[in-house]
Amino acid sequence: MSTRHGTLHLNAFLMGVGHHEAAWRLPEADPFAHVDVAHYQHLARIAERGMLDSLFLADGPVLWNDLGRRPAGTLEPTVLLTALAAVTKHIGLIATASTTYNEPYNLARRFASLDHISGGRAGWNIVTTADLQAARNFNLDSLPAHRERYERAAEFVDVSLKLWDSWDDDAALGDKAAGVWGDSAKIYPPEYVGKHFQVAGALNVPRPPQGHPLLVQAGSSEDGKDFAARYADAVFTAHQTLADAQTFYADLKRRALSHGRDPDTVKILPGIVPILGATEAEARALEAELGRLIRPEYALPQLAELLKVSPDELVLDRELPVELPDEDAIEGAKSRRTLVVNLARRERLTVRELIGRLGGGRGHFTVAGTPVQIADTIVEWYENGAADGFNIMPPVLPSGLSAFVDHVVPILQQRGLFRTDYDGQTLRDNYGLPRPANRNTAAPAPALTGDGR
Amino acid sequence: MSTRHGTLHLNAFLMGVGHHEAAWRLPEADPFAHVDVAHYQHLARIAERGMLDSLFLADGPVLWNDLGRRPAGTLEPTVLLTALAAVTKHIGLIATASTTYNEPYNLARRFASLDHISGGRAGWNIVTTADLQAARNFNLDSLPAHRERYERAAEFVDVSLKLWDSWDDDAALGDKAAGVWGDSAKIYPPEYVGKHFQVAGALNVPRPPQGHPLLVQAGSSEDGKDFAARYADAVFTAHQTLADAQTFYADLKRRALSHGRDPDTVKILPGIVPILGATEAEARALEAELGRLIRPEYALPQLAELLKVSPDELVLDRELPVELPDEDAIEGAKSRRTLVVNLARRERLTVRELIGRLGGGRGHFTVAGTPVQIADTIVEWYENGAADGFNIMPPVLPSGLSAFVDHVVPILQQRGLFRTDYDGQTLRDNYGLPRPANRNTAAPAPALTGDGR
Repeated sequence: MSTRHGTLHLNAFLMGVGHHEAAWRLPEADPFAHVDVAHYQHLARIAERGMLDSLFLADGPVLWNDLGRRPAGTLEPTVLLTALAAVTKHIGLIATASTTYNEPYNLARRFASLDHISGGRAGWNIVTTADLQAARNFNLDSLPAHRERYERAAEFVDVSLKLWDSWDDDAALGDKAAGVWGDSAKIYPPEYVGKHFQVAGALNVPRPPQGHPLLVQAGSSEDGKDFAARYADAVFTAHQTLADAQTFYADLKRRALSHGRDPDTVKILPGIVPILGATEAEARALEAELGRLIRPEYALPQLAELLKVSPDELVLDRELPVELPDEDAIEGAKSRRTLVVNLARRERLTVRELIGRLGGGRGHFTVAGTPVQIADTIVEWYENGAADGFNIMPPVLPSGLSAFVDHVVPILQQRGLFRTDYDGQTLRDNYGLPRPANRNTAAPAPALTGDGR
Repeated sequence: MSTRHGTLHLNAFLMGVGHHEAAWRLPEADPFAHVDVAHYQHLARIAERGMLDSLFLADGPVLWNDLGRRPAGTLEPTVLLTALAAVTKHIGLIATASTTYNEPYNLARRFASLDHISGGRAGWNIVTTADLQAARNFNLDSLPAHRERYERAAEFVDVSLKLWDSWDDDAALGDKAAGVWGDSAKIYPPEYVGKHFQVAGALNVPRPPQGHPLLVQAGSSEDGKDFAARYADAVFTAHQTLADAQTFYADLKRRALSHGRDPDTVKILPGIVPILGATEAEARALEAELGRLIRPEYALPQLAELLKVSPDELVLDRELPVELPDEDAIEGAKSRRTLVVNLARRERLTVRELIGRLGGGRGHFTVAGTPVQIADTIVEWYENGAADGFNIMPPVLPSGLSAFVDHVVPILQQRGLFRTDYDGQTLRDNYGLPRPANRNTAAPAPALTGDGR
């Protein structure tokens, strides 16, 4: 039935008790579940029951200071995903980690460890952390410039790839009789000297089952898109319209090609917030209930910060001010701001309405409807050059995830667009990507097979 | 029967397929188990069956370059222990991490996360990493000086304590009706400005179940002992004789007192390598077999490096050279060197014999014997002011751990010196230590209740 070959890819973006900022106020919610490993283990089992490709955790090394608004604090993702690895077998485990506030040796090692522990299911969502408060937790007084963060990120990934490749796959011998455990000649110390990093020695973890973890990126600035085109195996992105998603999709695939990569090896997954009901009315009622539970006195200052205006300039029952600061003056979160402003202008939303629309997905595409309506939207984007799959952002957890798994996934399976069983062992297998050869021993890659093969 | 109140404390120091460098060559050994999470989960279950207080993993961010000698590479401890938390309920989980090559915000957060995930079972073995090759993995050309490393370590721990205390225990409210999740007034950002670190904001993880993780230290230099006396809840140490252990024990307790702490709240655990047999002859046979499996061509250069001499100066069938470089000239690993030289001189060991003695425990106290003999040694040290418990270092894993748990632990239990069931919930409970009050809200501690209470 599909015009496309293969399966679409579905990632479960887990966030506390749901992506909607007011989800914790629902009668069903445990307001402390966001730091409860049992909650996440329950979610992981639901997602694996639905044959989803992967789980994903966002992250930043900073406490947001609006403690009243919603559950605050997040368990560190590489650690939390290790606890989820212990109760699952197939689903991929994607952790966000910052290149600005980590060291390559430590982080590459932690991802290699997670990949070993999970049997090849680790993924890294590479972020540069555009947040002044985070900078102030790491000896800095100001946020490093956007360009500088991306420059460091590129070096960070280059070094990490060298570290993951620093063991030959057959460096370990285990020859008991000869008393020779491994072959030092098959170790390739990076001896890396760059602008941001010097890393001399080999990693102290053997080459990971996947060669290296799946690399994920979500930047949408020019630097971000170029970085994704160069390094990413998968790209998370946010769009409000099919047309915008198509433009982004075509642009990123073109950029990947210009880096000598096969565009099919860069999987693009827009975010979608599915507000599900057995009927459309039921879905709309849930959406409305969540909207009522938002407290605008918390949400308005954050919107003002995103727009770089004073909170006084925003009036709840009016549209956004006609004049807003220039995009170019802003470091970080560039495209999210454009997306939010465009949404408000296009639909002529009041500030209150805009806050309601952002409450569920912070700018991601929100659809309230029946399982068939959600599935139709997914298929429409997938079949029309806008997506290789979706980043599923349930507004309420666990109920929104189990609703998606139990009611939307079967429709996609019936239409022949989604797997009915896991057919591989690793996260790369789930995404249909080959295990990268070790660059220290591989023959030079021919054009088009691209980065990391 | 015991002259002491309470229970002794037993920690299982897990290292690959055993502490003996040749353990991997035994017929029973899987030479690749050191990077296999199932191996460690098996060990954790054995240790918990024996009611042991805790598990411990050593670590350093560097690959040792003698790949031939023994299994190389180690999974990152905070991640690996999270996988062990998932299959255990009571046993403590102590990870080594370096203050020289981490940032406080990231590391404090990871330990807080492990503490939440494990229900209050996290411990941190604080090390400063005396290794030039590690420095070269972190942008440095030389090893920071001993004194500077300890200065940074003290700042690191000070900041970490502020981060763990940056949430009041009751900062989270979860008030659904009012729409107020937490109380920002109960968040205490560190706003720390020191020589090595500036950390402004609160941790993004609520206060851990234990208040903060158990703090463990193993330095034996003057700086190291002073650091332990100031911060550590438990101290791992290495001694070859009862007299040396008694001297260290008395000295460290005295130092703790001088820092205003109750000496009983600093638990001292010397290492012991128990080579167990049903008979003494059987134990000696295992010791001899392991000795035969050592390849001196690997072990001799490492001994030379420890002693700071050229490998040419060491002759396998002679004693150590009379002249050795001065202790004071050496940065790091100071006391281990003294201990090794004293052992060789005291027992007039040849280099080959010394290599055999070090093969099992790298300078730790090695005892070959029956379960009763091992238990007698443990009791002798425990009853005579040399130890509050032991750091158990099985030469072969898993067999050496299960032998200890199944045959030595029951003797200690019969003598009334060890628990027959876990009676608390957290690692601090296992060690008989109270949960520290939050320093931002606690009344000033009276003298003697000391650090962190």
